[in-house]
Amino acid sequence: MDDATVLKHLTTPDAVARARAIELVLFDVDGVLTDGRLWYFPTSESGLVEVKGFSAHDGIGIGLARRAGLQTGIVTKRRSLSVERRARDLRLNFVHQGVDRKYDALQAIWKESGLGPRQTCAMGDDIVDLPMLEHSGLAAAPANARPEIRAAAHFVSAHSGGEGAARDLIEFILVAKGIWEKTLQQYLTAPESDYAGTAAAEAAR
Amino acid sequence: MDDATVLKHLTTPDAVARARAIELVLFDVDGVLTDGRLWYFPTSESGLVEVKGFSAHDGIGIGLARRAGLQTGIVTKRRSLSVERRARDLRLNFVHQGVDRKYDALQAIWKESGLGPRQTCAMGDDIVDLPMLEHSGLAAAPANARPEIRAAAHFVSAHSGGEGAARDLIEFILVAKGIWEKTLQQYLTAPESDYAGTAAAEAAR
Amino acid sequence: MDDATVLKHLTTPDAVARARAIELVLFDVDGVLTDGRLWYFPTSESGLVEVKGFSAHDGIGIGLARRAGLQTGIVTKRRSLSVERRARDLRLNFVHQGVDRKYDALQAIWKESGLGPRQTCAMGDDIVDLPMLEHSGLAAAPANARPEIRAAAHFVSAHSGGEGAARDLIEFILVAKGIWEKTLQQYLTAPESDYAGTAAAEAAR
Amino acid sequence: MDDATVLKHLTTPDAVARARAIELVLFDVDGVLTDGRLWYFPTSESGLVEVKGFSAHDGIGIGLARRAGLQTGIVTKRRSLSVERRARDLRLNFVHQGVDRKYDALQAIWKESGLGPRQTCAMGDDIVDLPMLEHSGLAAAPANARPEIRAAAHFVSAHSGGEGAARDLIEFILVAKGIWEKTLQQYLTAPESDYAGTAAAEAAR
Repeated sequence: MDDATVLKHLTTPDAVARARAIELVLFDVDGVLTDGRLWYFPTSESGLVEVKGFSAHDGIGIGLARRAGLQTGIVTKRRSLSVERRARDLRLNFVHQGVDRKYDALQAIWKESGLGPRQTCAMGDDIVDLPMLEHSGLAAAPANARPEIRAAAHFVSAHSGGEGAARDLIEFILVAKGIWEKTLQQYLTAPESDYAGTAAAEAAR
Repeated sequence: MDDATVLKHLTTPDAVARARAIELVLFDVDGVLTDGRLWYFPTSESGLVEVKGFSAHDGIGIGLARRAGLQTGIVTKRRSLSVERRARDLRLNFVHQGVDRKYDALQAIWKESGLGPRQTCAMGDDIVDLPMLEHSGLAAAPANARPEIRAAAHFVSAHSGGEGAARDLIEFILVAKGIWEKTLQQYLTAPESDYAGTAAAEAAR
Repeated sequence: MDDATVLKHLTTPDAVARARAIELVLFDVDGVLTDGRLWYFPTSESGLVEVKGFSAHDGIGIGLARRAGLQTGIVTKRRSLSVERRARDLRLNFVHQGVDRKYDALQAIWKESGLGPRQTCAMGDDIVDLPMLEHSGLAAAPANARPEIRAAAHFVSAHSGGEGAARDLIEFILVAKGIWEKTLQQYLTAPESDYAGTAAAEAAR
Repeated sequence: MDDATVLKHLTTPDAVARARAIELVLFDVDGVLTDGRLWYFPTSESGLVEVKGFSAHDGIGIGLARRAGLQTGIVTKRRSLSVERRARDLRLNFVHQGVDRKYDALQAIWKESGLGPRQTCAMGDDIVDLPMLEHSGLAAAPANARPEIRAAAHFVSAHSGGEGAARDLIEFILVAKGIWEKTLQQYLTAPESDYAGTAAAEAAR
């Protein structure tokens, strides 16, 4: 089957070398793990639920990252129960919501994990992500990122946020590290139970 | 009316011959019957509803498949009430949710139906679908499938999941079997009541 | 401002002549007034709400049609409270939900309105709409319609369902009848209160 | 990183000069701050919630506008609790819902703010926005605006409503005024707490 129609990611010449050192992958949420849409559901005169749409492709990507031994996390300015649940289902190592200064969160994560800038990849889509991207060994962005972020990134996915951009980044890192094929075979041979869907189904009953 | 703008599906040279033998069509859900977005609606501190968006075009396609005597089913890793309801409304023959190893589900369906690999078509969009696709006579994928799946498929729809990819596949099979025109006329002459919408409306009252 | 980027609608040579006679415009719902996505929200073990997304551009289009003296309606196979509410807010003249044979609904509407096929325009996107389109003076389809419907249509909008296809059709008819400018001026001079949004806000309180 | 793929906005030759005078930026909601989709959620036989999807990029854009000393507001024909909440979270200066004649709202805002037409920018996407755009120093539209509005606009964003069109407009104004770099640095140095997300999370608990 001809794959010529698959979109191409944009990378800087040093992106593969940078990716080889990565042990930790951090994501912004809105516009990166989602398409950036914020849905406000008023539940009562004073109550409000904020709902977001996540990508099934990204979910499998984060499972692959865990299988490959990478640590994963999110650093986001907003707060919502939707994100809390998605993070729990994906078994992320680091979950930082309500973060005004993302570089502060980065330093806390480095302290806790014992890792440093060179081993860190961060993916963001807007100006509030710039400090996080500038202090990471590999800076990444989805296709829909604002121009400043695309310009600052070593890797720009051909997919937009919420459509597999995070998955593309993880595969790029695993290929650069030379462990993509092995990780894929391990994942297919011994798949994880889909804790997420199961928990969701149980909670809904 | 000029139809030159209709997008083209990609097929391998043996796809039509493979399609002629098909008696059973199985679909993954997320990214195939939907666009792959997972919506988490927190209903309370501990409750969670997972919501998905299905395609009306696919719904009519599955009605056409049933009219043509094909058996249909879904095999998915996740679990949700939304999928349970959609499956019931579409009157699918086989509904397997919470499946970690899709090839196991395939074998169970073959045992129950008395059908085998050559008579089976499977449509998937991600690596967890690979074992199911590799053991099916006709392997199919929506336009948005990950590259490994597009490469493994005999039929890649010009539509993405949730936008009619399943409908395209069913029409391709019915045309290959030479029963498209007859099935269409039967469907238009004696349409099924829309059990789905009716049930939904009743439940909502 | 250059408008060269505006997409072009496709029309048959006789479409303008056909449009001049139209007094009644009927729409399918899923895939025409929406993008064809069906969202199933389980509200409890047995309850279910079906939710759809409508276009604000279409809403103004239907207001323009009413101002121009055209009658409007929907004919749909499914049933949902969302559609009932949208129809009420748009003050449509004819609302037929749960229709298995759309031509039967057409005949009922003609009987009630005193109008006939030549004065009727129908817009649909799938095979169940074919009988309705074949018996209407002007057959119309959104860009995302299945190929059989595009082939049967005199007017195919450059927009997909839920993105303004119904609005495009109404403007095409008003221009063909030579009353577009007058209707637009009347609408801007004496706008209707947005009964819809107001009712929605009240109901939500 | 090559930025050649970033879409271009369309502007009239006098757009930059017009933008320099702007002190007040007003937005329509449906189709401008959202993609124009109206989601009707029936909550009971008589209740109804109208839900809309807003853009995270626009949210940061409005924060940048406030930091730069611009006043902001919305003028919309519809009414919904979703919009009320979004407006509160974005701390807009002027919130006019349920407006039948947008020029009347414009005059009220000028009276309250002491500003006038030359200092006002308005962004709209449909004919009901025309009077507001024609009386504003800088008329703006998202990519998905109806043709009449695109033709009347001095600035047409390359992004559609709900995908960053409002953000593009604000950046265009700040660049024209020569204060983009300074505003960006101030925003990154002393970010605002995300009042919106925090409030949403609290309300949801």
